[in-house]
Amino acid sequence: MANETITSVPGFLAGALRCGIKQSNKPDLAMLVSRVPAAAAAVFTRNKIVGAPIIVGRRNMRSGHLHGCIINSGCSNVCTGRRGIHDAREMCQLTAESLIPQIPTVTPAMILPGSTGVIGHFLPMAKLRAGIPRLAGEISDSQSGGQAFAEGILTTDTRVKMAAITVRLGGASVRIAGVCKGSGMIAPNMATMLAYVATDAAIAAPLLRQTVKSVVNDTFNCVTVDQHTSTSDTFACLANGLAGHRVLRNTGPEWEKFQAGLLEVCDALSRQIAFDGEGATKLVRVRVSGAASAADARKAAMAIANSPLVKTAIHGGDPNWGRFVSAAGYSGARMRADRCTCQVGKVTVFKNGQPTQVHLGTVQQAMKHSELDITVDLGTGRAFACRVYTCDLSRQYITINADYHT
Amino acid sequence: MANETITSVPGFLAGALRCGIKQSNKPDLAMLVSRVPAAAAAVFTRNKIVGAPIIVGRRNMRSGHLHGCIINSGCSNVCTGRRGIHDAREMCQLTAESLIPQIPTVTPAMILPGSTGVIGHFLPMAKLRAGIPRLAGEISDSQSGGQAFAEGILTTDTRVKMAAITVRLGGASVRIAGVCKGSGMIAPNMATMLAYVATDAAIAAPLLRQTVKSVVNDTFNCVTVDQHTSTSDTFACLANGLAGHRVLRNTGPEWEKFQAGLLEVCDALSRQIAFDGEGATKLVRVRVSGAASAADARKAAMAIANSPLVKTAIHGGDPNWGRFVSAAGYSGARMRADRCTCQVGKVTVFKNGQPTQVHLGTVQQAMKHSELDITVDLGTGRAFACRVYTCDLSRQYITINADYHT
Repeated sequence: MANETITSVPGFLAGALRCGIKQSNKPDLAMLVSRVPAAAAAVFTRNKIVGAPIIVGRRNMRSGHLHGCIINSGCSNVCTGRRGIHDAREMCQLTAESLIPQIPTVTPAMILPGSTGVIGHFLPMAKLRAGIPRLAGEISDSQSGGQAFAEGILTTDTRVKMAAITVRLGGASVRIAGVCKGSGMIAPNMATMLAYVATDAAIAAPLLRQTVKSVVNDTFNCVTVDQHTSTSDTFACLANGLAGHRVLRNTGPEWEKFQAGLLEVCDALSRQIAFDGEGATKLVRVRVSGAASAADARKAAMAIANSPLVKTAIHGGDPNWGRFVSAAGYSGARMRADRCTCQVGKVTVFKNGQPTQVHLGTVQQAMKHSELDITVDLGTGRAFACRVYTCDLSRQYITINADYHT
Repeated sequence: MANETITSVPGFLAGALRCGIKQSNKPDLAMLVSRVPAAAAAVFTRNKIVGAPIIVGRRNMRSGHLHGCIINSGCSNVCTGRRGIHDAREMCQLTAESLIPQIPTVTPAMILPGSTGVIGHFLPMAKLRAGIPRLAGEISDSQSGGQAFAEGILTTDTRVKMAAITVRLGGASVRIAGVCKGSGMIAPNMATMLAYVATDAAIAAPLLRQTVKSVVNDTFNCVTVDQHTSTSDTFACLANGLAGHRVLRNTGPEWEKFQAGLLEVCDALSRQIAFDGEGATKLVRVRVSGAASAADARKAAMAIANSPLVKTAIHGGDPNWGRFVSAAGYSGARMRADRCTCQVGKVTVFKNGQPTQVHLGTVQQAMKHSELDITVDLGTGRAFACRVYTCDLSRQYITINADYHT
């Protein structure tokens, strides 16, 4: 799986370049293209303030097919009114026009636009009018093309985020590879900042949509860095069918294998987002069990994962488990205080409503790992559970976000 | 109003001393007593994990009357099971026994216990058995007694929090004076960490309860430092009736004057909590208008006030207003993106879904004040509004909470 990028999937081309949108002079324009039309499913932010690319993207997703994605970083094209929508459409238009010589089936409505960066500024269209045709000439199916794509969509991320897997379906090898970005403004409610998964599986758009919805719910929708659901969250999966197996149906072991593979890729990507949360020094897995419903389990896990008191205690390695339990307590989830238990790593610190006799030094030791499990059982006697990825809260998060100037 | 403490209210005695619970050797045991039984109303945290003093306090509030309050800081007596409840009851027992020589009408059930500090540790009862009788001999109606009480309930607070007012009711001067504490683990859902208001107004317990509920909803329930609703939140109001006016009825100008006075005291106290939020350098008033319901207005205001991205932007003085608008967007409140407006201080930065032409330097200037207004109109065309107090998020918050060791 090492060295695999999104272009490891047959039939996909990608690339990125410096278009001059970011002052840092890092890559800021990225393109992903399937040689053939791909069945596609996408989910977008549930924020009521959405970026112009989301408005255009929702419309372009109606057909259930995409030919590619065009993404810029450095400016999110959010809160930009009609002019912003016009600009997002022009990005699709420019992309399609530039690709037609190589890919005659492409149309502007088969391009998914994406923009990430500061809110409230208009896109520098002159730069995009020059950059997009240039990029269309540079995309390739090489590993470096996939690597460039993963770099081109980043903002405050400190590293690229990729995952890939191969599954055997009906005698064929099927690749599933994904790329994502996200570090701050991360509490996806539908999908994360930007994530793109390519596969050569053969699957019809409606079934792909259903599969994506379920997988995203258990992966990207279970990550939070700072509870601030972005206005640009986008997850898109493109399946171009080139693997050559029989088209997947919505039951049976083949579909289950595909779903498990997609889940594994999305889980790996979403974990990378939490671990690269702004200022993060630790990956935290919050596990809530014994909940009376799935919604309760999620509420409690999210309350723990979003509490600044929990996140600072983890950052400081302070075995202050009262903060973990009390966050579940205010989450709104039903719980039985007298049956509640809490574990830090593998150490039980609270059982049946009372502190255990464990030495705080033991807990402190458990908190030193760079990957930490916080487990809370709500004690309702029912078995619903949820797992959320998050990270600690450090001075570096404040530095990044207070000293960042618009 | 300067120099007025809770003992400015006729018939109230107060004091505090060092009992040895806090390692810092600061005052950690405080007592407030009315010479005569007082009509009383209290509201407690809605966290499902509650401290033992809340469990005992809820029971003691059933009669609608209190004689006093006993509060320790340095240990919250939360997550301590049956032994914790027994300890909280013993605090009331010790208080009543020690007071009987001076105040013959007192019983343990007329004492409201309170504890604040770290979660998951048992109270050092030997210290309390020595401290409570000693404190009962030291309480007084002097200004210094009131001042000591305000100091004795503090934990990470950097200053005492008091407010007082005098209203004229039916020819009599009625005092209303309050004291509170709270700096971290502040997102009261029913009341804040600990707040005590004394008045010599004559009012029956049921009407007092109704008045308190409404006032607390608009004041303490509209403060957030870190969205972490504490397990110990308690607000109690004791009205001993010594002002000598006719007992208040639930309508008319007299009751309205009392309610307005109580609102003013609670507003001043809750503002002080936000301004003394852990690590805070600024008081922030988030105002949301144009909401489709009161619940929507509150949701949007709380989402803005709790977003770490909003709070760090304010800390850094970064005019990144997209964070304010997008927080309202993910709050779940209904809004019309194309009619939404946002003001930073008095500067309109976003109007009808588009950025205004204002220079960012002007916005930056507006953000330099130590008291900042963030105003968002959700544009639904309806008139519901909400105001929430909060503070900025600084490196100091992380230092306080990551380096704090249990």
